[in-house]
Amino acid sequence: MEDEGTTGTKVIIVGGVAGGASCAARLRRLDEQAEIIMVERGPYVSFANCGLPYHVGGVIEHETDLLVADEATFRNKFAIDVRTRCEAMSISPDTKTVELKDLKTGKVTNESYDKLLLSPGAPSLRPPIPGIDLPGIFKLRTVPDARHIREWIEHGTPLLTGMDHYSGYQTRRPPTRAVVVGGGFIGIEIVENLVRRGFDVTLVEMLDQVLAPLDIENARLVEAKLKEHGVHVALDDGVAEFKQLDGELEVTTQSGKSYPADLVILAMGVRPDTTLANSAGLKVGERGGIRVDEHMRTSDPDIFAVGDAVEVRDYVTGEWSLVAMANPANRQGRIAADVIAGRDSTYRGTQGTSIISLFDTTIAWTGVNEKTLQRLGDTDYEKLYIYPNSHAGYYPGAKPIAMKVIFRKSDGRLLGVQALGEDNVDKRISTLAMALQLGATIHDLEDAELCYAPPFGSAKDPVNFAGMVAGNILRGDMPVAHWDSVNGAFILDVRDPLELVVEQMPDAVNIPLDELRERLDELPRDREILVTCRSGQRAYYGSRILLQHGFNARVISGGLLSRAILSEEFAEVPIGTVQGAVHND
Amino acid sequence: MEDEGTTGTKVIIVGGVAGGASCAARLRRLDEQAEIIMVERGPYVSFANCGLPYHVGGVIEHETDLLVADEATFRNKFAIDVRTRCEAMSISPDTKTVELKDLKTGKVTNESYDKLLLSPGAPSLRPPIPGIDLPGIFKLRTVPDARHIREWIEHGTPLLTGMDHYSGYQTRRPPTRAVVVGGGFIGIEIVENLVRRGFDVTLVEMLDQVLAPLDIENARLVEAKLKEHGVHVALDDGVAEFKQLDGELEVTTQSGKSYPADLVILAMGVRPDTTLANSAGLKVGERGGIRVDEHMRTSDPDIFAVGDAVEVRDYVTGEWSLVAMANPANRQGRIAADVIAGRDSTYRGTQGTSIISLFDTTIAWTGVNEKTLQRLGDTDYEKLYIYPNSHAGYYPGAKPIAMKVIFRKSDGRLLGVQALGEDNVDKRISTLAMALQLGATIHDLEDAELCYAPPFGSAKDPVNFAGMVAGNILRGDMPVAHWDSVNGAFILDVRDPLELVVEQMPDAVNIPLDELRERLDELPRDREILVTCRSGQRAYYGSRILLQHGFNARVISGGLLSRAILSEEFAEVPIGTVQGAVHND
Repeated sequence: MEDEGTTGTKVIIVGGVAGGASCAARLRRLDEQAEIIMVERGPYVSFANCGLPYHVGGVIEHETDLLVADEATFRNKFAIDVRTRCEAMSISPDTKTVELKDLKTGKVTNESYDKLLLSPGAPSLRPPIPGIDLPGIFKLRTVPDARHIREWIEHGTPLLTGMDHYSGYQTRRPPTRAVVVGGGFIGIEIVENLVRRGFDVTLVEMLDQVLAPLDIENARLVEAKLKEHGVHVALDDGVAEFKQLDGELEVTTQSGKSYPADLVILAMGVRPDTTLANSAGLKVGERGGIRVDEHMRTSDPDIFAVGDAVEVRDYVTGEWSLVAMANPANRQGRIAADVIAGRDSTYRGTQGTSIISLFDTTIAWTGVNEKTLQRLGDTDYEKLYIYPNSHAGYYPGAKPIAMKVIFRKSDGRLLGVQALGEDNVDKRISTLAMALQLGATIHDLEDAELCYAPPFGSAKDPVNFAGMVAGNILRGDMPVAHWDSVNGAFILDVRDPLELVVEQMPDAVNIPLDELRERLDELPRDREILVTCRSGQRAYYGSRILLQHGFNARVISGGLLSRAILSEEFAEVPIGTVQGAVHND
Repeated sequence: MEDEGTTGTKVIIVGGVAGGASCAARLRRLDEQAEIIMVERGPYVSFANCGLPYHVGGVIEHETDLLVADEATFRNKFAIDVRTRCEAMSISPDTKTVELKDLKTGKVTNESYDKLLLSPGAPSLRPPIPGIDLPGIFKLRTVPDARHIREWIEHGTPLLTGMDHYSGYQTRRPPTRAVVVGGGFIGIEIVENLVRRGFDVTLVEMLDQVLAPLDIENARLVEAKLKEHGVHVALDDGVAEFKQLDGELEVTTQSGKSYPADLVILAMGVRPDTTLANSAGLKVGERGGIRVDEHMRTSDPDIFAVGDAVEVRDYVTGEWSLVAMANPANRQGRIAADVIAGRDSTYRGTQGTSIISLFDTTIAWTGVNEKTLQRLGDTDYEKLYIYPNSHAGYYPGAKPIAMKVIFRKSDGRLLGVQALGEDNVDKRISTLAMALQLGATIHDLEDAELCYAPPFGSAKDPVNFAGMVAGNILRGDMPVAHWDSVNGAFILDVRDPLELVVEQMPDAVNIPLDELRERLDELPRDREILVTCRSGQRAYYGSRILLQHGFNARVISGGLLSRAILSEEFAEVPIGTVQGAVHND
């Protein structure tokens, strides 16, 4: 038995998906007496918007699967007054009222509140490009959006209608060519799902890379994967115009290229919905999101905001940022409920942990990327590239994971990781996300005792391996170099002769590691020697020999594998199985 | 260029597998001048002993796959004097010499050392049971062991020879029935692999459960899995005698049962090899392992020891313990190398992270179990049972994970987790192992920002969910009860009527959650009410209503799913897909 909460408080929640729904459910549990009204302008509350691309692709078969919790659940289990197709039009903070419009009847009412939560989300960007409203051009943000795309794909439309020459009947041609505009999360996920449905897909991206949170060398790996699966990737190019020509769409870009299409998906990013916040005179940040404190409170103490519409603190850099992700939205909703109920919960910021599935590959990351550190002028960091196996190399099915690890030079703190591979990438990034959250140093990664049996990992897990290599760097045992600054250097390649046949390295001097101790007199003592091999492991062994014999040596992090990433022909150099990660510390 | 290390130090390493091999390779990298001799009594160095059961099962096809790094690698790349089939017979600490016997020639020599590392491992227990040396009875600890078992399976033996009645030629019957003695790691892994090869397998275990590090209710789940796959599980019974009868073996147990067998595998555990340590008068601990300090130094400052032969500090309880695992062995070898080379590395102890694959199921754990806390008389802990989906329930292929989470009542620190499920169990335990290592509280788990996209997780990951439920308990929002102490209590079942048809709960009063607010007057105000449902989620919702209406209520952790585990008929109650873990905090 207890006695707490805001007995009788009237709370209006605007937006009934991730953040709003979490807040409503949590608030009811904390306060059985509160009056809770949850309004949602769309037809559904608490739907799985992260599942939409997979519903388009047919992986999630039924639309009803996307409806995680329905109105009845909120009404019957949580005693919440749910109003769908109801839009909050404006807020009057002085009178503490919200103007609500019933979208079914058009009726407008004023509802008073004691506390107000805004979870309006971030609608898709839809710039005023000529032709953007043509039939066959869709966004993908809601369940009805997904339904419209599926209907277009399954039934075709008049646009795709022709005359059957034999029968004389009108036929509808199934759409086969798609253009996806925007290479962010939704863009990449919808590309995959359209390929899954047999489409010939072109991805048009305005930036010079897909998945902007990745550093460019890792984005290159993603782009290579896309191309490997037949996707046409057009970077550095924006859409200038959409046209309808002879029963098909044509997408013309700013560089003058044009792509025919039967279907266009706009995935050009999202922008926080601050309409309501503006109507209330709430503070909006420089990034364009509603500004909240660590308790999710806006500049008006009785108004809270959560989810894609708010700016959050980056957990690593402390900068304000926009993160449209489900986990933070849910967490923020819960915290806002706590605070509304009189508790002292705080949001610790967002570290940007993300993951995306792309055909047989998974790409994931957590923490800060290198380009952000460069933008901030932060030079107190080092990076490394490794390619450990996903599990013991001697157990079938091991696949290399390409990892980039960024850590602080001065104290070894883990700052960020990006990884790509075909097996068990999610485990490593979740483990490292937990480490980063808890302020781990790379030495903690060396010490980590993770799940190991041959089907699952290695006695030295990729997480350990990352720590060991980083530790070697920080302790001064392994000075490193990177391919972006090796021009003109003396490069020593310690691979075996057989490997040179497969992949040549013309600018380098080759001395196999096995012979290095005997052939030291072939190496210069007056120049720095950059050592390389396939993945960087034997290069490290070689560098240890050189350093202890008085040479000036550094290891090129990631070896030829990381050079492949940076080169123009990266797509042609598959990351094959690299040698086992045993004794590689 | 650098100048450090133990220039010219002579180091003998006894044992060339995980710990010894790691130490040797690391030491060479730190000290190019050291003289390093690595002796191994077996024929191979650095072999993958964790892969042996899978080689027997044919998953790892070739014996050579198990040989991770060969003598040539150590000799040529690391300049190490490797001596296989060479046994260290005794140590004279006064003269700092080791007596080495060449097992090929029988020749004995004395080798001096500056520093000595012992990594002798822990041989399989082989108690003096009558008949234990009969043909067809094998242990599984080395590559030759695996080879002998494979040969026995593939070619049969005279024991399995009979006369073909038609041809008059002798034929060999393939072995079809196996008895595995011991239900620890190796026992369970070999059981799985023998089933994979078509054997009818009986597992005989002396204790009242398999996998002793698990609490018994989770061991029951493992035993149910074994039975589901046709394995006969005989607990609480030791082997009394092995006999050879009419071309087959017979295993008789202490309880008087007997099992016919064509093949017997002994997996009765291991015991630290302290022969050498004793010969040197080194301190051996109460658990029977070589006692070392945090630098892996024995009671003799020039002698180090690592791996399965040493006692380590339990990271959670601080107790001395024996842990025969590869990750700690490798880590210890590396630390010993550091210390021998004059560095200050320390071993932080072992948290016991473990994982095992069993047919379609994975079982994993980290940290302390409940029975250890009970043995230590520690009452400052609470536990919870949850069954979250491995990823978003609306994305195909989600499977529930049965998790038991143990945490400290006074400060919320995570103490241990055990988990079992068919999908992505390893990720959650590795993530939680990292959390535990870094001293995380259950509130840090609530705050965790892990990989989420529908194929990989949920917006509230099982790790978050564990933290949220634990947080609810610690904050007093969700007083909990457990099935082992509900006798005679008033039990309220808040499931829907349809569910009662599937699984009845006769001792409980049923009021569906949807009706609870209206039917409060049916509940007693003078008794404690224990609330349950299928997984405990709706029970929590119900308890919130009750508590806020002045009732005295607790939630039975894990609901009917955790009762199923404790009941006798647990094997008949499959853990089906439980409802989505949305808004379940």
